[in-house]
Formats: sequence, structure tokens, C-alpha cells
Amino acid sequence: MKKLFFAVSAILLSCILASGQVRNEIDIPDLDGYQTLKCDFHIHTVFSDGTVWPTVRVQEAYKEGLDAISLTEHIEYRPFSKDIKASHNRSYEVAKPLADKMGIILIKGSEITRSMPPGHSNAIFLSDADSLEQDDYKDAFAAAKRQNAFIFWNHPGWEAQQPDTTLWWNEHTELLEAGCMQGIEVVNGKYFPEAHRWCLEKGLTMIGNSDVHQPIDWNVDFAKGGHRGMTLVFARERSEEGIREALLNRRTVVYHGETLIGEEVYLKGLFEKALEIRDVKKGSKSVSVTFYNNSDLVFYLKKSGHDTDIRYFRDYTIRPHCLHTITVNLDNGVKSGKVNFEVTNLWVEPYKGMECSYAVEL
Amino acid sequence: MKKLFFAVSAILLSCILASGQVRNEIDIPDLDGYQTLKCDFHIHTVFSDGTVWPTVRVQEAYKEGLDAISLTEHIEYRPFSKDIKASHNRSYEVAKPLADKMGIILIKGSEITRSMPPGHSNAIFLSDADSLEQDDYKDAFAAAKRQNAFIFWNHPGWEAQQPDTTLWWNEHTELLEAGCMQGIEVVNGKYFPEAHRWCLEKGLTMIGNSDVHQPIDWNVDFAKGGHRGMTLVFARERSEEGIREALLNRRTVVYHGETLIGEEVYLKGLFEKALEIRDVKKGSKSVSVTFYNNSDLVFYLKKSGHDTDIRYFRDYTIRPHCLHTITVNLDNGVKSGKVNFEVTNLWVEPYKGMECSYAVEL
Amino acid sequence: MKKLFFAVSAILLSCILASGQVRNEIDIPDLDGYQTLKCDFHIHTVFSDGTVWPTVRVQEAYKEGLDAISLTEHIEYRPFSKDIKASHNRSYEVAKPLADKMGIILIKGSEITRSMPPGHSNAIFLSDADSLEQDDYKDAFAAAKRQNAFIFWNHPGWEAQQPDTTLWWNEHTELLEAGCMQGIEVVNGKYFPEAHRWCLEKGLTMIGNSDVHQPIDWNVDFAKGGHRGMTLVFARERSEEGIREALLNRRTVVYHGETLIGEEVYLKGLFEKALEIRDVKKGSKSVSVTFYNNSDLVFYLKKSGHDTDIRYFRDYTIRPHCLHTITVNLDNGVKSGKVNFEVTNLWVEPYKGMECSYAVEL
Amino acid sequence: MKKLFFAVSAILLSCILASGQVRNEIDIPDLDGYQTLKCDFHIHTVFSDGTVWPTVRVQEAYKEGLDAISLTEHIEYRPFSKDIKASHNRSYEVAKPLADKMGIILIKGSEITRSMPPGHSNAIFLSDADSLEQDDYKDAFAAAKRQNAFIFWNHPGWEAQQPDTTLWWNEHTELLEAGCMQGIEVVNGKYFPEAHRWCLEKGLTMIGNSDVHQPIDWNVDFAKGGHRGMTLVFARERSEEGIREALLNRRTVVYHGETLIGEEVYLKGLFEKALEIRDVKKGSKSVSVTFYNNSDLVFYLKKSGHDTDIRYFRDYTIRPHCLHTITVNLDNGVKSGKVNFEVTNLWVEPYKGMECSYAVEL
Repeated sequence: MKKLFFAVSAILLSCILASGQVRNEIDIPDLDGYQTLKCDFHIHTVFSDGTVWPTVRVQEAYKEGLDAISLTEHIEYRPFSKDIKASHNRSYEVAKPLADKMGIILIKGSEITRSMPPGHSNAIFLSDADSLEQDDYKDAFAAAKRQNAFIFWNHPGWEAQQPDTTLWWNEHTELLEAGCMQGIEVVNGKYFPEAHRWCLEKGLTMIGNSDVHQPIDWNVDFAKGGHRGMTLVFARERSEEGIREALLNRRTVVYHGETLIGEEVYLKGLFEKALEIRDVKKGSKSVSVTFYNNSDLVFYLKKSGHDTDIRYFRDYTIRPHCLHTITVNLDNGVKSGKVNFEVTNLWVEPYKGMECSYAVEL
Repeated sequence: MKKLFFAVSAILLSCILASGQVRNEIDIPDLDGYQTLKCDFHIHTVFSDGTVWPTVRVQEAYKEGLDAISLTEHIEYRPFSKDIKASHNRSYEVAKPLADKMGIILIKGSEITRSMPPGHSNAIFLSDADSLEQDDYKDAFAAAKRQNAFIFWNHPGWEAQQPDTTLWWNEHTELLEAGCMQGIEVVNGKYFPEAHRWCLEKGLTMIGNSDVHQPIDWNVDFAKGGHRGMTLVFARERSEEGIREALLNRRTVVYHGETLIGEEVYLKGLFEKALEIRDVKKGSKSVSVTFYNNSDLVFYLKKSGHDTDIRYFRDYTIRPHCLHTITVNLDNGVKSGKVNFEVTNLWVEPYKGMECSYAVEL
Repeated sequence: MKKLFFAVSAILLSCILASGQVRNEIDIPDLDGYQTLKCDFHIHTVFSDGTVWPTVRVQEAYKEGLDAISLTEHIEYRPFSKDIKASHNRSYEVAKPLADKMGIILIKGSEITRSMPPGHSNAIFLSDADSLEQDDYKDAFAAAKRQNAFIFWNHPGWEAQQPDTTLWWNEHTELLEAGCMQGIEVVNGKYFPEAHRWCLEKGLTMIGNSDVHQPIDWNVDFAKGGHRGMTLVFARERSEEGIREALLNRRTVVYHGETLIGEEVYLKGLFEKALEIRDVKKGSKSVSVTFYNNSDLVFYLKKSGHDTDIRYFRDYTIRPHCLHTITVNLDNGVKSGKVNFEVTNLWVEPYKGMECSYAVEL
Repeated sequence: MKKLFFAVSAILLSCILASGQVRNEIDIPDLDGYQTLKCDFHIHTVFSDGTVWPTVRVQEAYKEGLDAISLTEHIEYRPFSKDIKASHNRSYEVAKPLADKMGIILIKGSEITRSMPPGHSNAIFLSDADSLEQDDYKDAFAAAKRQNAFIFWNHPGWEAQQPDTTLWWNEHTELLEAGCMQGIEVVNGKYFPEAHRWCLEKGLTMIGNSDVHQPIDWNVDFAKGGHRGMTLVFARERSEEGIREALLNRRTVVYHGETLIGEEVYLKGLFEKALEIRDVKKGSKSVSVTFYNNSDLVFYLKKSGHDTDIRYFRDYTIRPHCLHTITVNLDNGVKSGKVNFEVTNLWVEPYKGMECSYAVEL
């Protein structure tokens, strides 16, 4: 009988590998000195209240072109515990061999799951998740901090816990002051403008995650070009340590549908790296610029205040993987000027696009 | 803390229900006196070597428009048993409440998993799966038979067990004679022409299943209109008992990609129920028939031998949910005749389409 | 040789019909006393600067589930006139037989094409388009008015003519006062909030059109569920006259991506007809309502100001063709109250959603 | 008014260019010494019985990743001639400037359109299409031949002309002997096995074309990964002359759905260039080969006769853009042997796949 089992098991493994080997890379440019890593730090499996085996999460990540994930099972909520009894580290252990094989960076993490305040938080880069099982939530955070975890507040505007408005509680101030909050989820399924504001004001890292519980295909319409909510991490190297250093230094942008949310320096970098100038044609009264968008990102442009002798688009959409030509007309003998516009889907503040200004001259 | 758990649990349940409530009905007509039930009798979950929780299988079935499924965990192969220790009935128990809520008929089954011969078999309509755990495979089959199970041989041409040719072994003759084989999988991922031939020769029920282990979205390209391999069961009533009676009386057709495999009486029934005549126009030398294909099925027609004075299509594709007009020309004063063609994707024998002949007259 | 031509021609016609016979109905409910007709009143063909033959526009309309279209060739701009010389009525004449055959209402129209002011306008329900060929634009409008045309201003915020801001010119006041403007395009490719505002203030009919020039598949991603911009017309009967009467009485809603733009009475009607209550369950402290969205429309709900003892969703998405259950909790012994929310994608004013308030009681 | 016209015209042009600039390259490898050019030599526009303007055909070709096209209007069948009167060269002239701009090789051609025999033929590389307008078909072929045209028989099995069987007529022998037939369409909408056989027997070039009349999106489901039927031409250079030289020397493969049809030397070349060996692992009793399919092509493998001590797949599908690992087991102390299989979708004869044999050794 052993022979049979071996045979079946080999088939299973080869199936997993075969179906997982198709990877759709996400085309988002690197920045000078940094690699752009695509990360999801909030994921569940059957080891808490998700509905898939941990290896599925690795394969999903591979197929979608992610670089790093964390399986952040609830410490306090394990509805399948009648059938599955295990250490809080077990989900990580089950997924690790396949993650290594597939080149996915797997970061050990857990979700500290409490009513509001302080609600749910994720601690990642843990060495031992079991030590987070504590009666008092402060002890759980303290245990995470002792392991040098990076801790962020999850879905602060989740309606089950904040039914009307997204509030910052005293408990969050305490956690922040105790060094137990380094970031906040600005996106988890949906966008939380208050979290975005708090990150800007308090110097916290902006995080975007999927919080997926079901097979990811149920949540994301890949056939329509969709992607899961994720954090773009600008890392000095493609490694767990590279990600940790970047998170601590707030080098992230949140990628949510067609919107990017982050600090202007990174958004500007992505915008300018994505667009390769191919040609500049100067006429007697106009300048035409031809450029290629080498990324999967779309950019929505909207003209800002400008010299009336400089005529150009009111709105323009820079579609991905597409060659574009934009023409600027200079009227009334004007020889140079500024082209000003907002990129309305790159948010430097809640719902506020990034302003750009480029010089043109004949 | 209880309150919290309740809240999270309620959220989870409502999510499951919400995301599962979108059902894409499969449009395949009923036959006179029978409902056409869409069934998959071969499915795995984390309780054997699948990678999803049993409730996922119910939700997938609901979304895809299935009527009945069976979770047929391997009795002898449970690679996750280090983390999941449970009765062989447990998968069924976990899924049953949601199946009832969603109106999916859940049939208790198991896979008897042995090397070749006799290979793998499924026993469905079990009352107690645990009793199938036996050292000798004959005892396992006997235990299933004592429960009045319907037993069928799985993927007889699986290359891991039949690397070169698909053979019928003495052990299969013994099982057949002992009343321990009522059907064979003619389709499991792929089509097995030998199984098709054996079903015809030995009076066995033709079965088609998915044998899904991963999330179903990995195997089927739904965005391209794909569907899982399944058995169409022509049942007197939509119930577990209705399905059993139909299986015992061989009232099935296997639905595999664009192909239907089964006995002519059922294929002809599906073909004629799918096509609603809307209009017949008679000219002096031609007859035009307008009909609507009310089903999701496509039909590929190819002209057969015919009177040369009867002119019509050489090949014709009847696309689903589409109105069609076919014109037949009668030359040289001929007043009536026969239109003969093969429906090349309705297989009455291995790779052999169903022949049709319809009379026309001016 | 005649015989050959006949044969080829018959093939051509049957191909056109065959490929055109697949119609995807758009599921948007009728209102009490009115049929909801899906209309596009701004379309081009090779008879002005479009790139397809007029019959293609009829087939596209059929396939997409439209009820009525107007081929509105530019009177003044005909770049293909070296090869195609024809009356301005010719496009209509070419398309009419197929439109009749396919049940598409074809309305004779033309585009009066001038620089700003007054820019471009469409006149529909014409009897003779040739009479609109005039040196002075006022004569062209007068000719249209003499034919009892319905006239609307096209794409008022088109950047080629209004490069910075969308202005209302004196010429528009004159046209309005002369009875030569009954509506404005609120949507043409994109949404014009100023046009929306003007329609509300001046009592003009809101119109949404595609202004398609190329094959429609280049502009709309049907595989992703997209649709062309269109006008929903609430007509007493499905006829050209029914549409005219509805337009004159401003019974329209503009359908643009996932957004509907119109007067509250019609938006509320569509919302309530789309949602069929299937079940209301009253608990001791909560009421659950189950309803089915029978339409292709999605509705985005956002909670408005409410009694704090009435707890329900903050945001909720009512997906199309999907069963939903919403639960309202009544706390602190409250027995009844109001559920208030905004439907954020049904716009009663520029970018302003429709407010709803429904009573609940235990 | 001039200014207006200029403005509108510029917009039109920029729209055409903008929407046409997205090109989806078809990934099919080059062969040693040859570029693989994707060509469609059979296309219609409004200048015969197509329904789009010639520029649309250039833009479609650009978007789909084609290298070369020919607009082959019927000489004898021009149903829109009431509105469009023009030289038979006009379609080419209208499309040429855009083709040059977009880098599409535009080949002047025409369709000689007669009843059977000899049916329809295309002549390409013409200098003057008008000279093909002749009463006697032989004069039309002679006129084409005088221009050094490459001439091929179109859709030999078209049911409108060959209702029952696909026959070769005496007239075809005459054309062949007169040097007026260099190739045959093996694919035009569907596959013609007889044409395939004739090409092999008579040394004719195998051609595959779309024969598109409507917007191409109506015929091909691009969202499902479809492509038009086309000819892969193995050319010494990417130019009209390069294509002509390759066609005359029969260096083509027909690309039809998932099937490639052609001579073994080219099919074998495509197969081996598409698969890049990444790794070979030798165990004590097995060899594993890891390779990447760098093409858009799928390959279906089916085991052929082999040494029973060499165990490997029965069937295997090499999906495009995917990493694969195939393991071969050597039993009973065997140290080396042959892996034999058929690639069932690369047809070297009608419906007959290409045989492959590769050596393995420990």
C-alpha cells in the first residue's frame, strides 16, 4: 500500500506545481535604488476562518505576481478548531516549503482580534505566534513588540466595529505611544480616508491588503484585469529583511483598483518611470511628446490652472502598455510655458490627486 | 469577548451567503417526464487531499448552477491528517447545513483508493463512510454494497495507473459480477473512449465528474464560458432518491466541454427540446426553417448521405441562445425528401456523432 | 454571371442576419405606464466621418439590446466625399430595411457641425436632412425646427471646442429662446456636470449618447460587461412617436457606466422596480429584508444621518441579478425607525446621489 | 469654416491613431534565418462587399499583431456601387498612408470572383487591379499573371459552390498548368482537408486567411484568446518582397485556432524554438526536463509506440507561457531510450499530428 500512497502524493505535488507555475507578472516600475515588491500582509486560511489550505495562498500569490505574503490567522477566532487543532505557527509551517520552492517571501504573522477599541491589528515578522495568545490585548501587543514585529491597525472603518464613523480611540494613542502601531490599513476591501489622513499626520506606514478568506478568484475578477488590494513596498533588496526595512521607513504605496495612494515622492517616481519618452516633435507653434506607458497602471490626467496661451488637453487617460502622443499648442507668439495637470488617481491626500508641472518650449 | 466572536462569525456567515447567492443557471432542457439535474459525484476537500474547506464545494456548486454533488474523500489517502483528524463522514457533516440552506443536494460518498487493479472507485449514497476503511479492497466494496451504494470505477485511463493502454482487469469482472460496479467515469478531466465502449457493452451507467482538488476556478475558465465535467441525470424528481433511481436506470448523459456523451434516446431528446421551431417558410423550390436554440449547448452539424436534388448545408453550427434559419432547396421538381446529418458533438459511440434525418416537403 | 451574384448576395445577407441575430437584452425595468427604451441618438457611418457601413450600426444596436438609434451624419464634414457622394438622407435609407427587419427603431437625424459657439448639435425626427445644409447655422436650425425636429446640443464640454471650461454662450440662449434646443448631451464619452446643471435649471431633456465613429467594439469592453453611453427613454409605446413624446416631456435617464443620471422620480422608479422583496423576517430586535435585484444595474448605498439606535450597513453594494439580505438592528427597546441612505451612483444633481428613507418596525 | 474642418479632422486622425496604437503581439518564434510574419491575404471593405472603411482593416491588423494584409476586393461583385464608384485600386490607396504610418505591410490584391469552376481566387502583389476586370475568367488570371501576381484558390470547399464534396475540376488543372495557381486556402473560416492534401501532392503553398467582411470583432472572440485564421510566412526580411519570396518557396504554416498546418520542417522548427530547456535533472532511475513555452501556442502531446521500460505521460498539454516539468522513468535497469510522441495539433497531413522522438539517458 505504501507504493500507492507515494504515487498519489507525487501526483498531488506535481499538480500543485503545474497549476501554480503560470505567473502573471504585475508591471509596475522599480524606483531608483529600490525594487517595487508587491505584498499582501493580511490573509486567512482554514487555520483560522479562511476556507483554503495554506498552500493555496502561496499558489495564488505566485499566479498573481506577488512577491511576499503573510498568513495572519486570528489568534482569538478559530471556528474550525473542532476539526483543526494546531499551534498558531502551523499555517506558516505548512506553507513555507512551497513558498520557498516558488520564490514567494512568506512572512510569519498573526491577527490580534479584539472588539473596538482597539479592534483588529496584524503583527508581522513574528518568530512565535503562539506567544500572542493572551487574555489582555495589551499583553498580546507587548508579546509582538518583544519579537520586533511590525504592527498595523486593520480595517479601521470596518462597519461591524465602527458602524457610523471611523474613530480614533484613546487606546490607539496608547498603542502608538507604546510603539505598538507602525502602520494602518488604508485599504482593506475598501478605502478608508480617515486612515489615510492619520498616516499622513502621525507618520505611519500606509498599508493595503486583501484580507482574503475565500479562494481569491471569488473576490477579484481577474478576467476583467482586476487585482487584489496590495501594498507596493520599495525595498533595497527582495527579501524579508528588505521588506521590513522599507516598512519601517514608510516606503510604501497602496494599490487599490486603479488608484495609488501614498507619498508624493513615490507616486511621482512611479509615474515618471512608467512613462518612457520616445519622441519630442517641435513645430512652429506646438510641441508633441510621444511616450509609452510601460506599466499596468492607468493614469487619469486633468488640466490644472495654466497660462491661457498654452493649450492642451482638459482630460487625458494614459492607458497601460500603450503609446501616446500629447500635443501642446503655444499661441500668440509664446515660446515656452508650463503644462500643469493633476493625476487624479494618484492620491497624495484623501481623494486628492498629485499635481504635476512640466516645462515646454519651442 | 463572546460578543466579538458572535459578530465576526455572523460576518463570516453573511459573507459566505452573500458571495454564494449568485447562481448561474446552466440552460439544458428537461426531457419529457424527467428533470435534467446537473451533478458532480467526485470532489475532494481538505478532509482528504483537496485544498478547500467543504463549504467551498457547496458554494462553488451553487454558483455554477449544479443540483447535486458528492464529497468523495479518499478513505485511504489523507495527507493532511497530521492537522485534521476526523471521521470519514466529517466532510459531509460540515457541508450539509449550508447545502440545505442553498438547496444543493449533498450525497454522502467516499473514494475507495487502491492501486490498479482495481484502481479507484467511488461509492455514493452511503450511510456510514467509516465502514469502508478496510484492509482488503473487497471488504471495502462489500461494506459499500451493504449500504446500497451506487459504485462506479473512477478515471479508468488515468496514466498513473494505466500508463499505456486502458485495460479491463479480471478484478473488474469480479466486481461487476459481485454487484459492486454500476457505472464508470467516461469523463474525469479527459474523455476515456474505452470506458464509453464498456458502458455500452456491459450496460453500465455513464458518469462524468470533475475530481476537483483545488479551487474550481483554477480548473475551469468560467470567463470563457467553460464548465466542469459533469453528469446530466434525468430524474423523476429533484431529490437524492430521484438521482439514485435515475443512475440505477442509466438515465445519464456526460457533459464534457462542448461534447455530450450518452445513449441516443437522451441525446436526441436534448437536441430536439433545445431547438424551438419558430417559423417554417415554404417557397416554390425551397423550405426555410427558423428555430431558436434555447440552451447553453452548441451543436455541430455535418451533412450525411442524401438525395442530390436536396441541397442544404455541408456543415452548420447551432450556437446557443441564438435564432437560426436553415434553408433546404429542392431541385429538379422534387417535392419532398430527407435532410440527413450527423451532430458531431453528440456521441452515441466513441467519437461517433448522432445521425439525424428529418423530412421536408414543399 | 447573374446567378453568381445572386448566390453571393444571398450568402452575404444570411451572414448579416445570422451574426446579428444574437441579441443581449439589457435588463432595466419598465416604470408604471412606461416602457424603458434604450436609445442612442448620436452615431456616425462612412456617410460622414464614421468608418462602418450603416447596416453595421443596426446590427450593433440589435446585438447590444438597443431599441432605437439615429445615424446623425455631419452635414458639414464628410471626409470620404471623394469616394462617397450622396444625399444627407442616404445613410438612413441604406440602414432602414435592415432596421425594419430587426425591429430596431431608426430615427432620421443629422449633426449640425459648427465651431463654438454654438458648437455641434443633433436634430432628430427629421423628414429631410438635405435641407439642413445651409451657410448660416441659424438657417440650419430653422430648417430643422420647421420639420418639428427634437434638437440637442452635443458634447458641450468637448475640449477641442471648450478647452478650459464648459461655457454657456449667448448663442445658446438665442437657440433656446428660438425653440431650437430641447436637450443637451449630459454624457458623450464622458460626463459633463455643467450640462447636467443646465438641464435642471432650464428644463431641458438629459441625453446620453455614444457618438461612435469606429466599430463599437473598439470603444466598449463588452467582455467586461461594459455598455455604450445611452439614453433611457420612458415611452408610452415602443415607437418613434413614443420616443418623441417622451423626449419632449423630459422622461429620460442617462445611463453612463455604472451611473444613472436623471430626475429623482425616474431614478426612484428604476431603483424600486429593480428590487423585488422576497422575504421580511422580524426578530425580537432586528428586521431582515431579502430582495432580488432583477436588473443589470448595480446600486451603491451609503448610510445617511440616522437614529443611533437603528444599526445597519455603512456601505452596501447591490450587485445585479443577485439575492441580497440586509439586516437592521433596533437597539435599546426601540420598536421602529427609519433607514436612511444615499444611492451614490444615481445622480439627481451633479455627483450627488439620491437620498432614500424607508421605515422599519418590529 | 475652414478652421473648424481642420480641427475636426485632426481630432479624427488622432482618435484613429490613439485607438490603433495598442498592439497585441502574437508570440510565435522566428526560425533560423527567417522571421515569422503573421499575414492575412483575404480581406474585404466597403469597396466590395465588406462593411468597414479600408483604414479599419489596417487598425485591426495593428491591434492584433499582424505584419501584413491584403485588401482583396471582389472585381466582379460590388453591392455598394450605387454609393461607391471607384477604381479597383482605390481600397489600397485609401489604406496605404495609415498602413505606412503603422508599419503594416499592405499588399495590393484582388479577388477574381467566379462561379465554380474555377470559383474564387485571390491574386496578390498586383500593380494594377483594374486590369483584372475581364469577361472571361482566363483573361483575368492572365492579367494577374502578367503582373507577376501570386495567385491562390480561395475556400475550395465553400458549400455555396461545392455543396457536397470538395472537388478538383479540370479548370484547376488548367490554371495550375498555366502558372495561374501557386497556392490554396487550406483555412478560410474552416479547414479544408482536401486542400491540404492537394497542396502536399501538387507542391502548392498552404494559405490561411480570415476572408473578413464585418468588423473583425464579430468573428473572433479576442476576450477568450481567439485569433483570426492566418498564414505564418517565414521570410528572409520583413518586407513585401520578403513575403513574396517566401510564398513562392512554400515557406508557410497555417494558424487556425489551436492548430498549425504545414510541412514538418517548419512545424518542428516552431515546436523546438517555442520550448526553451531550463533544467535537466537526472536521478538514479528517472530524468526530469524543465522547459518554458515562450509562445502563444499550445501543444497537445500523445504518447506513441515506445519501449515498455520507458515510462512517461500518455497525454500532456504544453500550455503557452508556462513552465513545465516532464519526468521520464527508466525501469528494470535500462539506462537510455527514446521518448516518442505525436503533437496532435501540428498537422503534417490532414488531421495527422507530427511525430517526435527524443533520446533520454541517465
